[in-house]
Amino acid sequence: MEHLKVIKIGGNVIDNPEALDAFLKKFATIPGVKILVHGGGAIASRMLKSMGIEPVMIEGRRVTDAATLDVVTAVYAGLINKNIVATLQKYGCNAAGLSGADCNAIVSRKRPAKPVDYGFVGDVDKVNAASFEIFLAAGITPVVCAINHDGQGTLLNTNADTVASSVAVAMSSLYDTELVICFEKNGVLYDKDDDNSVIPQIDKPLFEQLKSEGKVNAGMLPKLKNAFDAIDAGVGKVVIKNSNNITDDNGTTIV
Amino acid sequence: MEHLKVIKIGGNVIDNPEALDAFLKKFATIPGVKILVHGGGAIASRMLKSMGIEPVMIEGRRVTDAATLDVVTAVYAGLINKNIVATLQKYGCNAAGLSGADCNAIVSRKRPAKPVDYGFVGDVDKVNAASFEIFLAAGITPVVCAINHDGQGTLLNTNADTVASSVAVAMSSLYDTELVICFEKNGVLYDKDDDNSVIPQIDKPLFEQLKSEGKVNAGMLPKLKNAFDAIDAGVGKVVIKNSNNITDDNGTTIV
Repeated sequence: MEHLKVIKIGGNVIDNPEALDAFLKKFATIPGVKILVHGGGAIASRMLKSMGIEPVMIEGRRVTDAATLDVVTAVYAGLINKNIVATLQKYGCNAAGLSGADCNAIVSRKRPAKPVDYGFVGDVDKVNAASFEIFLAAGITPVVCAINHDGQGTLLNTNADTVASSVAVAMSSLYDTELVICFEKNGVLYDKDDDNSVIPQIDKPLFEQLKSEGKVNAGMLPKLKNAFDAIDAGVGKVVIKNSNNITDDNGTTIV
Repeated sequence: MEHLKVIKIGGNVIDNPEALDAFLKKFATIPGVKILVHGGGAIASRMLKSMGIEPVMIEGRRVTDAATLDVVTAVYAGLINKNIVATLQKYGCNAAGLSGADCNAIVSRKRPAKPVDYGFVGDVDKVNAASFEIFLAAGITPVVCAINHDGQGTLLNTNADTVASSVAVAMSSLYDTELVICFEKNGVLYDKDDDNSVIPQIDKPLFEQLKSEGKVNAGMLPKLKNAFDAIDAGVGKVVIKNSNNITDDNGTTIV
């Protein structure tokens, strides 16, 4: 099976134009087939505020009413996505921006309004691997934002980490798929204050041991759970690393 | 050669959610391969105003500074484009939204700053028919907004009528291509105040005659010139019609 990398970047890269350009320049050089998934960053919140709409977050998740959905759709699927694609074209990587509505690539389900009504927030229902394959077969790199649709005409705002792992799982039927989650640290750390204390590899027994010893940072727990879920669902490996080091052989590998 | 329809819609449809939904429902039923090109409408101006940015127009064209480019990219390539795509999916038409940066579909050149500096406004340089063919061959309908790129990482705001005719011209190398320009009238009218006075067909001699008689509305002149340019460049025919009647056999045909 051919190797495919699904790489996810978040706010720490997207909110910094120089860091984003540097990342994309390196990303463009990665050989083989690849998919980029990007989060939203702080631009949508800034635009909402400038329009007099106060962003509402519950437990770190954005509450998405109709006016907010319009702005996040505009910013994620338009402003951020097209600037990433244009920059990749500049660096010689033929790319295409996708929301889940495009080519019916990702269908989501609106999250139930109870216990918390997050509004137009979706949970991924189905990723159509064939939609991504159209691009990969043509030598084009999909650039995926976390806006998808419900198939009934409604767009939904979805968590970008979940989109990335769902895409990686679906693509595992066609490719030997590696999921790379980029963030601002060099990997999963033994000591959260020491960026050199990267744990090179974590398997399930080590994960359980680290948890029982209270050594896993609370912020890392959902990322690691996501990673093990992806591997259980067919992804070859998951790497958690710093977006500055995308082309280097480092970070934490989850097996 | 297979028949292809390139259909352009503008603000009169996009600014009216019910009219847009009704148009897309009909559009979805059009048999054969097709491409939809959409303009921007008034949503971007409303968003700019709500952000305290006053839209600047010179001779009906938007002056696009960096802040305005961000908003029109967000609104045209994100908000409008993805809502159209999601609605087409609802109506069973598998669609994919494209800016010119996606798949390097349309490359534009920044308009010279003299005599008028329009800012980040582009004139179409090259349409890559092969990029559109990827979608058409897969049974997917491209939905094209008028944001393209210069190949050097810069997005540019481009006139949607020009994008539509440039796409139609480029696709003429692969398809027997028909360009359909939709607007709020039933076609080119003998009497601009009588919507039943549609001229069914206009060829060049009739166009010259109508011009010399002063019977062509000033607003129609650029549309007609565009149409004859497209035909001279290889497009099979151009139809100018009402967006309400997209599936009916009427309007003005330019040959």
